[in-house]
Amino acid sequence: MAETKGGVLTRRGLLVGIGAAGGAGAMYAAMGALGLAPTGQDKEYTPPRQGDFTLSGRASAKVVIIGAGVAGLTAAYELGKAGYDCTLLEARQKPGGRNLTLRAGDRLAELNGPAQDVKFGTGVYFNAGPGRIAQWMVTLDYCRELGIPIETFINNNASAYVHTNGQTVRARTARADMYGYIAELLAKATNLGALDKALTKDDRESLLEFLRRFGDLGPKLDYEGSERRGFTRFPALDGGVPMPDPGTLHQVLAAGTGRAITNDFGYEQATPMFQPVGGMDAIATGLQQAIGQDRIKTGARVTGITTLDDGVEVTHTGGILKADYCIATLPPHLLAKIPHNLGAPITAALSTPVPIAAGKIGLEYGRRWWELEDRVYGGVTETDLDITHIWYPSHDYHAERGLLVGYYNTERAAELYGALTPEDRRRRALTQGKKIHGEKYRQNLLSSVSIAWERQEHIQGGWVRWPSFDSSFTLLQRPAGRVYFAGDWLTHLIAWQAGAMESARGAVTQLHRRVLQSP
Amino acid sequence: MAETKGGVLTRRGLLVGIGAAGGAGAMYAAMGALGLAPTGQDKEYTPPRQGDFTLSGRASAKVVIIGAGVAGLTAAYELGKAGYDCTLLEARQKPGGRNLTLRAGDRLAELNGPAQDVKFGTGVYFNAGPGRIAQWMVTLDYCRELGIPIETFINNNASAYVHTNGQTVRARTARADMYGYIAELLAKATNLGALDKALTKDDRESLLEFLRRFGDLGPKLDYEGSERRGFTRFPALDGGVPMPDPGTLHQVLAAGTGRAITNDFGYEQATPMFQPVGGMDAIATGLQQAIGQDRIKTGARVTGITTLDDGVEVTHTGGILKADYCIATLPPHLLAKIPHNLGAPITAALSTPVPIAAGKIGLEYGRRWWELEDRVYGGVTETDLDITHIWYPSHDYHAERGLLVGYYNTERAAELYGALTPEDRRRRALTQGKKIHGEKYRQNLLSSVSIAWERQEHIQGGWVRWPSFDSSFTLLQRPAGRVYFAGDWLTHLIAWQAGAMESARGAVTQLHRRVLQSP
Repeated sequence: MAETKGGVLTRRGLLVGIGAAGGAGAMYAAMGALGLAPTGQDKEYTPPRQGDFTLSGRASAKVVIIGAGVAGLTAAYELGKAGYDCTLLEARQKPGGRNLTLRAGDRLAELNGPAQDVKFGTGVYFNAGPGRIAQWMVTLDYCRELGIPIETFINNNASAYVHTNGQTVRARTARADMYGYIAELLAKATNLGALDKALTKDDRESLLEFLRRFGDLGPKLDYEGSERRGFTRFPALDGGVPMPDPGTLHQVLAAGTGRAITNDFGYEQATPMFQPVGGMDAIATGLQQAIGQDRIKTGARVTGITTLDDGVEVTHTGGILKADYCIATLPPHLLAKIPHNLGAPITAALSTPVPIAAGKIGLEYGRRWWELEDRVYGGVTETDLDITHIWYPSHDYHAERGLLVGYYNTERAAELYGALTPEDRRRRALTQGKKIHGEKYRQNLLSSVSIAWERQEHIQGGWVRWPSFDSSFTLLQRPAGRVYFAGDWLTHLIAWQAGAMESARGAVTQLHRRVLQSP
Repeated sequence: MAETKGGVLTRRGLLVGIGAAGGAGAMYAAMGALGLAPTGQDKEYTPPRQGDFTLSGRASAKVVIIGAGVAGLTAAYELGKAGYDCTLLEARQKPGGRNLTLRAGDRLAELNGPAQDVKFGTGVYFNAGPGRIAQWMVTLDYCRELGIPIETFINNNASAYVHTNGQTVRARTARADMYGYIAELLAKATNLGALDKALTKDDRESLLEFLRRFGDLGPKLDYEGSERRGFTRFPALDGGVPMPDPGTLHQVLAAGTGRAITNDFGYEQATPMFQPVGGMDAIATGLQQAIGQDRIKTGARVTGITTLDDGVEVTHTGGILKADYCIATLPPHLLAKIPHNLGAPITAALSTPVPIAAGKIGLEYGRRWWELEDRVYGGVTETDLDITHIWYPSHDYHAERGLLVGYYNTERAAELYGALTPEDRRRRALTQGKKIHGEKYRQNLLSSVSIAWERQEHIQGGWVRWPSFDSSFTLLQRPAGRVYFAGDWLTHLIAWQAGAMESARGAVTQLHRRVLQSP
């Protein structure tokens, strides 16, 4: 979920040099106008409609969809709008794919590992897969369309912590200190005349005014600490007890909080984010209900895909399914292993993206000590430990119980945890979290469940990374015979449900156009 | 709600010079440890308990509380825990004071102006007074204690707008440009050697690494735009269509977005904030229910306060009330006008704080166009117009109707709007909002209600400002005879419900201690 993926979104355009002040106003105003332009992903998408066939005199087709994750479910849902006869083949026992919310009574099996029985209290849930939605993503449109209530997911909390180099501070404190010192440094450099070539007199004045505000600088443009750092006792009848003085510039830079305090700067994770009320699987469930459960065959592992002149033939553990078209939505590294007649370049392309490990643990506590004692309501603590993040729940505030995400890590850290037994994962997560929260992190723990996505059968990865978005990527965005591909892995929104949905829409659009134009 | 109020919270301590690198680590680690300290306001507060009297052999007392706003209600609620016999005298027809949520069927009267009938649809509400709660505030403790569900109030939204100097950009764009350029400038100054006295070699490297991340700088440490600015079409099947190139440094500085993009930097408005589900008046209602409606006399305007050796006598429009003690919670400028025998210094002190005008308008729309078209889910657009802010609702996402706060302004801007008729306020608010949102801002408007707090009878101000927190302030924090004072105006949390609550707790603590120690 890096801000730039695979290096494809390259830096844009004209290098605007410092101090090149021509045409002031006009360009910025144009940006403003553009900032107002609709930004929804779906503006260009027209769903198939029953009426499309009425007009063309053609009939809808039969489509077999391999995989009932978010991409497969979305494709079936969209095709269903025009009356396509869709069947979904899902190898797992439950549709939804990585859209997985665990609750009491669920059992989570694992490849080469023990199954875990989920023992949470009533109403407690753990989004083991995706957990947050950006407001510009098409995912919210599906929530609206399917009538799924949403609520805020807090991705940035000034009261949460930053833990780096063995030290823990509140995010607000880390931010105030870093901003304070960089404002002071830039103000000093400006006043020393170091930037006179780059700045007009007006620029200098505007800049200093901004820096004073940005860093909460004192009258001499020094950073001397700030109320923004927080208080050991907040103001009330008196002015409160402020945090002690900040460290020196050297100490603040050495603390290494930079990554943590810029974590939500990108367009994918900017504040605010959202989640369905009651669990992310409301989306998978909503799509299933709209599609009809009878169209989904679970426990059906696909063993062969054959494209023919007049249709497709998909063999699976329950038999053979013939249809007019196929949409294959499995992870590419799994699709690549299924025998097919789509050609060697397709196999090569499907083998190109690299699966990435990702893991999460849900820690259920009998007391919401993070609210009661730390005054942290939702949000994320960023760490340089192998747990990477701790997520505090953005819902059911003040309830008796609550569930933290005790780690959400990827790649090597995820592989490390994934290789442990569930008990050892929990033990390690608690040891790490204790470095931030102290002994209470181990107390009042009621139960836990951990997932290692690379060990989930028929999924085997958190997501994939393309070495580059090259011809393999574009090859799979087009059909191979009568077989279409879809999944977050075929988009620039990898690891997001929005990617799976956009990709499904893309495949549906192509397929529907073909059906409407077929002789 | 400025970050520093009345100049009392002065800058702290030791001036840590740039480059003074002694004792690295230790101080920062100490800060870390302190960052973990409990920060709740209520740690030092012990509520009165029934058992207190059992132990001391004394009995609770009779208390008359003047004003049933948040301070008065909190005082009665806390005293009630020990069985005090409280009566609240409220001049208005409804308790709650500025904790006012308007819904269909409500009628809002105004001094020297026409009454407004509220015609919102079912479920639509307008928090005409306080609208947000910081997570460290005692207000959340009352929500927990009273069983009032809370949800996130979005105070900062990267997709909301900044409108300054006639130009509108998304907050994410304004922020990316300003951060990008200041990072570039500081990187340049660093590399020019301008800060060599302030920075060790290690510091320089750490700083440049941070600046690269903070400003999303290119390989040459130039700011050339960034995906953080947003897209006219976000990435999906392709990399999306990024916003056009940023303006020059000069243009970005001249745009004057600095105030807007630092609006949530302070401890009072840092992300995230919270609100009761269904309207802020859940707090007033919850307190009333806990106190008992029979203890609250509405329409009872106080006309005299007399402290006596053995009690107090409060005259009001409904008669005379005798009690052992009194807690006076009216706004100070109104209290100052009530005849009393508390002495001239009390009148002088009560006359010291200056009432501040504050206004809000609720605009109810039949379509949530800000979600559908602008993809803005909650949050605030900051402007340099006289409307100051536009608030988008942080609840009931995807509902049919929705209510924006079309202005929330103070002082001169509030007085300007307050002097208009409700129709003219709406017209002006729509004309201003149209500058940001275009014609749709005037379309689909169903109804509106505006409040001018300086024109609300028995309140007559949004809040007050103390010229300085001097001896008048501390004088009123102590009782005058048997009369105690309470209100947000007697705290460093002016204009926050938390101030009213903390002040009430302070008065209750003093009063209860006195009762327990009385002969």
